[in-house]
Amino acid sequence: MKDLIFDKNRVINFSDAVFSIAMTLLVLEVGIPSVKAISTYDTWELLQYRIPNFIGFIVSFLVTALYWVSHLRSMKFVTKVDSKLLWLNIFLLLFIVLMPFSTGLYVGGFDYVGPFVFYCFNLTGIGIFNFLLISYIIKKEKGHPELTPHAIKWYTYTALNALIIWILAGVLAFILPLVAKMIFILIFIIQFIINRNYRIKENK
Amino acid sequence: MKDLIFDKNRVINFSDAVFSIAMTLLVLEVGIPSVKAISTYDTWELLQYRIPNFIGFIVSFLVTALYWVSHLRSMKFVTKVDSKLLWLNIFLLLFIVLMPFSTGLYVGGFDYVGPFVFYCFNLTGIGIFNFLLISYIIKKEKGHPELTPHAIKWYTYTALNALIIWILAGVLAFILPLVAKMIFILIFIIQFIINRNYRIKENK
Amino acid sequence: MKDLIFDKNRVINFSDAVFSIAMTLLVLEVGIPSVKAISTYDTWELLQYRIPNFIGFIVSFLVTALYWVSHLRSMKFVTKVDSKLLWLNIFLLLFIVLMPFSTGLYVGGFDYVGPFVFYCFNLTGIGIFNFLLISYIIKKEKGHPELTPHAIKWYTYTALNALIIWILAGVLAFILPLVAKMIFILIFIIQFIINRNYRIKENK
Amino acid sequence: MKDLIFDKNRVINFSDAVFSIAMTLLVLEVGIPSVKAISTYDTWELLQYRIPNFIGFIVSFLVTALYWVSHLRSMKFVTKVDSKLLWLNIFLLLFIVLMPFSTGLYVGGFDYVGPFVFYCFNLTGIGIFNFLLISYIIKKEKGHPELTPHAIKWYTYTALNALIIWILAGVLAFILPLVAKMIFILIFIIQFIINRNYRIKENK
Repeated sequence: MKDLIFDKNRVINFSDAVFSIAMTLLVLEVGIPSVKAISTYDTWELLQYRIPNFIGFIVSFLVTALYWVSHLRSMKFVTKVDSKLLWLNIFLLLFIVLMPFSTGLYVGGFDYVGPFVFYCFNLTGIGIFNFLLISYIIKKEKGHPELTPHAIKWYTYTALNALIIWILAGVLAFILPLVAKMIFILIFIIQFIINRNYRIKENK
Repeated sequence: MKDLIFDKNRVINFSDAVFSIAMTLLVLEVGIPSVKAISTYDTWELLQYRIPNFIGFIVSFLVTALYWVSHLRSMKFVTKVDSKLLWLNIFLLLFIVLMPFSTGLYVGGFDYVGPFVFYCFNLTGIGIFNFLLISYIIKKEKGHPELTPHAIKWYTYTALNALIIWILAGVLAFILPLVAKMIFILIFIIQFIINRNYRIKENK
Repeated sequence: MKDLIFDKNRVINFSDAVFSIAMTLLVLEVGIPSVKAISTYDTWELLQYRIPNFIGFIVSFLVTALYWVSHLRSMKFVTKVDSKLLWLNIFLLLFIVLMPFSTGLYVGGFDYVGPFVFYCFNLTGIGIFNFLLISYIIKKEKGHPELTPHAIKWYTYTALNALIIWILAGVLAFILPLVAKMIFILIFIIQFIINRNYRIKENK
Repeated sequence: MKDLIFDKNRVINFSDAVFSIAMTLLVLEVGIPSVKAISTYDTWELLQYRIPNFIGFIVSFLVTALYWVSHLRSMKFVTKVDSKLLWLNIFLLLFIVLMPFSTGLYVGGFDYVGPFVFYCFNLTGIGIFNFLLISYIIKKEKGHPELTPHAIKWYTYTALNALIIWILAGVLAFILPLVAKMIFILIFIIQFIINRNYRIKENK
């Protein structure tokens, strides 16, 4: 049954559902203050105390959204969903589903190294399966008019960019924790360069 | 990759999923009484004590439903989903996802100013991205037969109406908390006027 | 904007999502025993203690499934979703979303009258909007080849059957609590009669 | 109304939603350590203590995914969804929804027999309805070009394989708990033989 073809629409709908649920569950990690806490402390104080939670919620929501957008971008080339693509996708979703846990651990231990390393590990897991998924799609669907050599490079570099930076962040956390937490900004700078390069070459 | 076009169906399905999950999670904020509480107190007492929770649940459910209906209304004009539309939509969903938290905070501190201000802030966030989304769609899809000058005005005024009233409610809460909490009724009155005006002009 | 027509597919997808999430959240009301409880008590004891929770979970899951099937049955006649249909549907979903709360209250106070009355109230709410939705669809879509006079009767009686029995159960609970809790079996007996009657008349 | 035909698309979408929500809720059973625990213990210790939770999460996620893939495989043959198929599907989903509970019980009582037996019971429930669903589809859709005698055997044996092994695991748990917990590996070995046999016969 190795050549079995699956219903692409269902695979996509299922993935969209998993992404959306994982992203919505993130809000549970912010943690609503108890009635007692609300009547004792100033709301402003309570919210200030939750700043790491809000940062964690927003960063994880947007990062997961980025991978959903990447999923949108790569799945549109797919003509047939075979077993390998199906299972690469399921493992990608496994790590997406883990995000609410990693985010909760990270915001609960904002000042510690361990929780951040686990957070990086989760994002590395997503990054690896995102990269494998994209590579497999590129390999299988070559010949697609939109998959020009420049476009293939763009897809590959974009997937590698996020993956490598999160691995780096996880390793750096042991030596330079503060730098490690800010290094993800590099993703956007490198992406800017990748995009510019792509446009220059495409327009030659 | 700026001119990338995304699969409209997936964007819509994903949005519907996020709306529906956020609306369903609202019920968790009502808070089921413990087995011990049920055996100690009268059910009627327990429910009475939860009146703010029920109000919060119903108001948030219906308000979120209203924005979903607005999403239904505006997305049907969209012919192509580009990056800007995609991200405006993702930020709209970010604030939708925050609703269970804001509702929980609001009902937990029903007699305080702070939680209500935060609730207004959340609705203002939804309102802003709802307005930006609609404005962008109107700009991009002008020429659509249903987007007559009167219809455009109706869409713009409707989006602005809710947005402005919730900002007003948030500001007023510091001075006249009780008035601030009731002012949202104005949304329906103003909407009634906007609708009547639209019909008069359309039928001229 | 009263004659606005909405995207039927999105309304259906959204409803399916709400139904499925509410039905899945029901499992949270069973309540997983703590690690300490598992190491202290026999698993069999722990599960026995949770019998009301399992009954509540299964009954609520199947009852909600029944209304979803009813939704499947009635929405297929719909050709255009207008504002009234949209909002009847949203209010139906509001009561569907409340089910995990009512179920949790009911199983937490299995031996008390109050929680069961609230449970009946919730099912009555669902029943009312289910009935209104079906009546509205019948009125709007008359002329549909499958909506024969006999079929219309079948739809109306089926919707009324569940509605009336749950109202009855809620009222009876104050006088004969045990009978009230078993009376829902009548729904299946009456439905059997409705179905037989329908088939006899249809085959004449 | 016995010959009523339901909208296949909605049934599939609804099932996908239930599968995806149940799989995402599994992550809640891992249990995020409290802020206090994070500041007292080493992250590595906290994660080590949660190894059963991670195993439970990953196994349940992948096992549920396997049944979703099976659902993908069998539903594609379905041309008409009748009442019986609809309700077989709903009961399958009932047991899918129970998975987060069983997983939570299992990981909370990793060293005990009872929780594992309940876990096997849940998987047996899924297995039974999965088998009934597939048998019913094979019976109803015979004549479908892809449903060759060899393919029918493959579908039947594959469904029986997982079902029987989980029943066996549940029974064995009382006598040889350690063997019972590892016996699920047999599923993959037997599946390998089923697949090889199928390919040999198909290529004759």
